[in-house]
Amino acid sequence: MTDGKLFNTVAFIGIGLIGSSLARVMRRDGLAERIVVCARRDETLQKAQDLGLADHVTKDPAEAADCADIVLICTPIGTNGAIAQAIAPVLKPGQIVTDVGSVKQAVIDAVSPHMPEGVHFVPGHPLAGTENSGPENGFDTLFEGRWVVLTPPDGTDDGAVAKVKTMWECAGSNVDVLDAAHHDWVLAITSHLPTLIAFNIVGTVADLETSTKQEVIKYSATGFRDFTRIAAQDPVMWRDVYLHNREAVLEMLQRFSEDLSRLQRSIRWGEGEELEDLFKRSREIRRNIIDAGQA
Amino acid sequence: MTDGKLFNTVAFIGIGLIGSSLARVMRRDGLAERIVVCARRDETLQKAQDLGLADHVTKDPAEAADCADIVLICTPIGTNGAIAQAIAPVLKPGQIVTDVGSVKQAVIDAVSPHMPEGVHFVPGHPLAGTENSGPENGFDTLFEGRWVVLTPPDGTDDGAVAKVKTMWECAGSNVDVLDAAHHDWVLAITSHLPTLIAFNIVGTVADLETSTKQEVIKYSATGFRDFTRIAAQDPVMWRDVYLHNREAVLEMLQRFSEDLSRLQRSIRWGEGEELEDLFKRSREIRRNIIDAGQA
Repeated sequence: MTDGKLFNTVAFIGIGLIGSSLARVMRRDGLAERIVVCARRDETLQKAQDLGLADHVTKDPAEAADCADIVLICTPIGTNGAIAQAIAPVLKPGQIVTDVGSVKQAVIDAVSPHMPEGVHFVPGHPLAGTENSGPENGFDTLFEGRWVVLTPPDGTDDGAVAKVKTMWECAGSNVDVLDAAHHDWVLAITSHLPTLIAFNIVGTVADLETSTKQEVIKYSATGFRDFTRIAAQDPVMWRDVYLHNREAVLEMLQRFSEDLSRLQRSIRWGEGEELEDLFKRSREIRRNIIDAGQA
Repeated sequence: MTDGKLFNTVAFIGIGLIGSSLARVMRRDGLAERIVVCARRDETLQKAQDLGLADHVTKDPAEAADCADIVLICTPIGTNGAIAQAIAPVLKPGQIVTDVGSVKQAVIDAVSPHMPEGVHFVPGHPLAGTENSGPENGFDTLFEGRWVVLTPPDGTDDGAVAKVKTMWECAGSNVDVLDAAHHDWVLAITSHLPTLIAFNIVGTVADLETSTKQEVIKYSATGFRDFTRIAAQDPVMWRDVYLHNREAVLEMLQRFSEDLSRLQRSIRWGEGEELEDLFKRSREIRRNIIDAGQA
């Protein structure tokens, strides 16, 4: 926590679960003198105002970005290029632009070319979220104890990176700096693939006969329920993740499918010993996660 | 809850997470005059005694079953046939035999042929569990608010079914009666397939290069962690589930893989609209689960 202001004017482009949670932190700790919120829909802007998160609202990204010390792009990553292009004309040297997208290399490729000389783009990804989207579902403790990964390209201004780091530390996060491509590879297996699989199994159930589906819902506590929670996340945000981290996700998906085929074969041919050996390995990984304090 | 005894002597064959949790309920509510515990290993029997769950311990299933009003088979399902065979010589008309296996038709096929005339076999499955196995990890609220499915074959004694139902109601469960094959089909998709997938993705991670694996563990909170919890369950128990519900699991696995191939194709070819549509369906299922009070 800091007891002082970190920014004069902050601009949020997008004010969903992540953006509104960070805005709540800023309000709580008085990190910003003034918060400007930009969203596409009147309803969203109204909610941001009703929640007391906006001193000014606009539908124009450039109007929001103008004169902001820091511009936070908190929209599905597919929109980031267009937003960067829209705000570029008003950006001035010294301003910081950052984002919260779950894929980093594609965001850098889309945003960096639009950044004027002297504007500091610091790509970021808070590893936090819930299945509830929208500004009304944010909360100021969302980032507490969670990792935020920053992936500044070589040559990014150290002072700007430090400022973004401090902002996230105020939100209670631990901040790491990683190479963007490496981030995307690690997240493909920790986040993107598990979520894809959750979406997929819920889809498989959606296609079942109605009578069976009712019972699946009734007895969902046996494992399936956990998947539905993951798969209840924002479809547009996740669509963009898969479209923009395609290579890493396809590689991990291929490995997963090969492994699943092996399990399928062992089940078909009754290879109990092989199944048991494969299942035993899982406990080791779980133990490592518990040891790492992430359980 | 009842305030009286339900049984004189209860025999637990196997005293792991499920058996010990039910034994705790019996102790708490005084449901049984005497509890006999049978397990294969000295260490397990010692734990059952240390936990105050056993009035008598033995390694011989027949000794445990002799004179018990009810015999609870709480072992991995692959052992059930041999246990039924071992206890058959001492079973007398009026005794109840039940089990807690996650697959029901295979257990009926393995156990029923050994049951002497007049002995009531009532197959059961409490839809409850945690990733921690062993008698020391049981607790008396494990079954509260959870479903227990009984799958008595046609002609099973109504009084015996009612008694097993009452026992589970004392543990706080809601009891349903289903056809065994239908149970196995529903559980294949609600429980067996999700768990298999969790084992599988954790296995995929286990094969990653060590440096990446460390980061996967560090950043596991982004989705992967939920899978490791599911995949930390008892390998032997789950091996037996897959070996004994093979047909239903393979059918569901086939559907899942087809659906996953479609998603994979959509990612490869950048079909954003199709991805978004598929992801949107998941929210509907989640909403149904919330409406059903299972979330």
